[in-house]
This record gives sequence, structure tokens and C-alpha cells, in this order.
Amino acid sequence: MTVPDISSAANPRIKALVRLRNRRERDAAGRFLIEGYRELARAIDGGVSIETLFTCPELYLGDNDVGLAARVVATGAELVAVAEEPFRKASYRDRPEGLLAVAVQFPTGIDRLDLTGTPLLLVAEGIEKPGNLGTMLRTAEAAGATGVIVADATTDPFNPNVVRASLGTLFTVPLAIAASAEALGALRAAGIRVVATTPAGEAAHFATDLTGPTALVVGSEQYGLSTAWLEGADQRIVIPMPGSVDSLNAAMAAGIVLFEAVRQRAIASSADDTG
Amino acid sequence: MTVPDISSAANPRIKALVRLRNRRERDAAGRFLIEGYRELARAIDGGVSIETLFTCPELYLGDNDVGLAARVVATGAELVAVAEEPFRKASYRDRPEGLLAVAVQFPTGIDRLDLTGTPLLLVAEGIEKPGNLGTMLRTAEAAGATGVIVADATTDPFNPNVVRASLGTLFTVPLAIAASAEALGALRAAGIRVVATTPAGEAAHFATDLTGPTALVVGSEQYGLSTAWLEGADQRIVIPMPGSVDSLNAAMAAGIVLFEAVRQRAIASSADDTG
Repeated sequence: MTVPDISSAANPRIKALVRLRNRRERDAAGRFLIEGYRELARAIDGGVSIETLFTCPELYLGDNDVGLAARVVATGAELVAVAEEPFRKASYRDRPEGLLAVAVQFPTGIDRLDLTGTPLLLVAEGIEKPGNLGTMLRTAEAAGATGVIVADATTDPFNPNVVRASLGTLFTVPLAIAASAEALGALRAAGIRVVATTPAGEAAHFATDLTGPTALVVGSEQYGLSTAWLEGADQRIVIPMPGSVDSLNAAMAAGIVLFEAVRQRAIASSADDTG
Repeated sequence: MTVPDISSAANPRIKALVRLRNRRERDAAGRFLIEGYRELARAIDGGVSIETLFTCPELYLGDNDVGLAARVVATGAELVAVAEEPFRKASYRDRPEGLLAVAVQFPTGIDRLDLTGTPLLLVAEGIEKPGNLGTMLRTAEAAGATGVIVADATTDPFNPNVVRASLGTLFTVPLAIAASAEALGALRAAGIRVVATTPAGEAAHFATDLTGPTALVVGSEQYGLSTAWLEGADQRIVIPMPGSVDSLNAAMAAGIVLFEAVRQRAIASSADDTG
């Protein structure tokens, strides 16, 4: 075991890590935190620029951590070994896994998204809970979505809770942040059908064709979608609920409509194969 | 404003409320906590026996709280007015709403469930996170499920985080706790088709008939389903994911298969109407 580079919780670099939990600090520094094995692995896969990797090998869970740390260092990151006590202080988790990185915030302009072909996009408007946004990103990745647009963001996607709840899919699903008017304009210009999910929808989600270029729009749990999306949408759909309406959270609603699109596309694709 | 019954955070009844966050204390007392407007309203709807209602009218969010408190008292509950400081100490929430009740734990035997007709059941095996169990209950209610069976429970459904994440649907969706063998036996005896959700499923969830008496079984995020369910199931289904497989959490998987059953049943029912 080598001597750690940082052995005291009073080290200014540990304090700087704790400060990055705060949005103002993140925005001022243009940096954010990535913690955990899966999150870091996806960050490398997604080409995120990692500035510094803080490690605490005593906390590693398995044999893969050493290799992942080497992969991070190979991208040009500084490696800093930290003793257990200061690492626990810097960690955002109850059970730290010994891997905590500072990364450079990446651009989130809507021009990042490839809107050609037959995209399947998720638009999330005004989502307030980082956990919900993270779950939406994770689910959009599972559904093979082309990208996620966060419209009128109230949650900072670089929030450590988004990184965590997304399991790092934040780095692999193309993500854009835009005002609702800008997003609606870009979708229209690209000929993408805008489908708003709302309790007042005129058609069931499963009775609506989602096989073409489609943007599925979901609103916040508390306020639903704004009139910009409700009136600007090409179609308003509802998820029929035999039970009570307030029992579906925003991320769950997003997952149900995304996987209905997956179902329709799988069936259309197998019909093409046999036709 | 009347004088509160409890004005000090050192009051033994406040301490007793805090202790009920602990499972051993809950089990020993046969009691649990219900906090918040929607949760309490659903508890009354679900016939839960509320022993004591602690209120802090200074924290009420709206005009309905007084009426709800009156409804709770009308069921026979003792009413205890609490000053703001001790109420905040007793509250489990960051933003207390002034309503916190002690209720009697209700029976959770599998005989509570009505397995006749064409039930749609959700079986959740080994779920560890209270938030996931709560979300499953909430989603099962939205889907109009007949009931939820918690198999080989590692999470206490009377955990305050289950009450909260379920928004109180814990009290309105029939809930049973059972060992996996007992649950499987009861489902078989009732002629209910057991459909296990697993990455190794032989058919897509949407290519499987879910319109008959059906129990949809989902496992824990970390370990998936046990062999008892995988081998005991009448069918094993998979949710096809164009993206990466570890990106769907257990509650999301449950919601996607539940709402696929809702879709199939809605279509079958409209076909019946026109046939």
C-alpha cells in the first residue's frame, strides 16, 4: 500500500469536493462530481472529460476498480489517492466505493441531438426531483431512446443525485437542455411528431402510432405540462388508468409511454421482416 | 388558537413517535406512522384503524386539513394538538404538513386477496428499497391491480418510507406478505397464471396473453427472481430493451408489464363490446 496523497479531512481539496455538491459552486467552476463504478464507466464510454480521480482502494468493492481507475487515468485524469477518513468525508454516498471524480461539465445544447431518421425522444418539462430526472434518463437508455430533452429545467442535470439515479446514463443517452419554445421549434423544424402525455389526452397512448419520428413529452408531477406543450403538440395522449390517476409518478409515466413506443416499433420491424 | 396539548419536544409521546421509525419498535407495538394529507385520506378510505392523530394546525397547507382531521377523529381516534417545535421533531418529513398519526398494523395474510374472477396481481420478490416497494404499490393502484403480494419480504411495508413513496396506496391496494412457496401455492390453487419477468424470458411481455387471471412476478434489482419463481412460473417473459439491460429499475419493470396487461385488457374489453 502506498502512502495516500491526502490523509486529512481538512485538506482543501476535500473541502472543494464537498463544495461541488452545491449548484452555484458547480456552475462557477464548470465542474461536477461523478461517484461510483458504473457511473464512472459510463462517463468514460460517453467521452466525458474527467479532470481528477480521487481513489480510496481500501473501499473498493471488487477487482474491477483498479482497472477502471487505470482507464480513467489513461484519458488524462490526475490520480489522487485518499485515505479512508477524508474519502468518506468527500463522498456523497452512505457506502462509498472508493471512486470519486471531478469532471468537466459538457455542452447540453439541443444541437447535440441527432434528429434525423426515426428518432424516439423523451422531453421532460419542469421536472423538480433529481431522482425522477435520473430515473427518466435511465429508462430512456433502456428503451434505446435517441435522446432526452430537459425543457425549462428546474433541476441541474449535473446534480450528484441525477448522476446517481441515472446510474451514469446521463453520459450515454444524448441529453439537451432547452427552453420549451426552443425545443418545440427544433422538433417541428426536424419534422418530429410531438406527442404530449396528459390526463386530458384525446387518445390512449397505445392507440396512437408512435413508430414514426416521435418526441414523447411528460410534465412535472405537481403541475403537469404547460400550455406551450399542450397546445403545441401534434397529439395529446393519455395513459388509461383503471385505478386512481394521481398514482403514477412522472418517471413511471415516461417509462410506460417509451416502452409502448418500443413495443410498436418491434412489431412494425418484425412485420417489415416478414413482409 | 387553543393551547396545544404538547408544547415540549421532550414530551414522552413525541419520543414514542420518533421510536416508531424503528422496525423493532413498530413490531413490538403493533403500530406504525402515517404522515401527510393524501396518506391519511387513503388510510381512512382503506379502513385503517387510527389510534391517535397528532396535529399542528400552524403547519397545515390548505383548508382541507381541518376537515380531514375531523374525519379521522370521527373514526374514533384520539386528537392531540402539538406545538410547532415538538411536531417538527416528531415528523419524518423535511416539510411537515401538520398531520401525523399512529395507526394499528393491519393483517397482511394472503387470504386478504380476492383471487376469484380475472385478477391482475403483482408479486414483488425480495424488494429491498422501501421507495421501490412504495412506487410499486402506487403503480399497481394506478393499473387497477387486484392486489400486491410481497414475497420473502426484506422490507417492512409499515416502514414510513413505504407509506410515503406509496402515497398511502398501501391502504387501498390489497396487500399481502407471504413466503414465496406459500404465495406460489395459493396462486396455483386459484388457477392464476404465474408470469415471471426475467432477462432470460422466452417471450416478450407484449407477445404474451395477460388478459386471463394473471400474477406478474418481479424480482429485486440486485438479484432478480429466485429459482422458486423462475421454475414455478407458467411463463417467463422479458421486456425487450433496445438499450442497456441494467437501466430499468424493478419498480419501472413492474409498471411496464402492469400497463401492458392494462393495454391488452382494454383492447380485449372493447373487442367484446363490439363483438
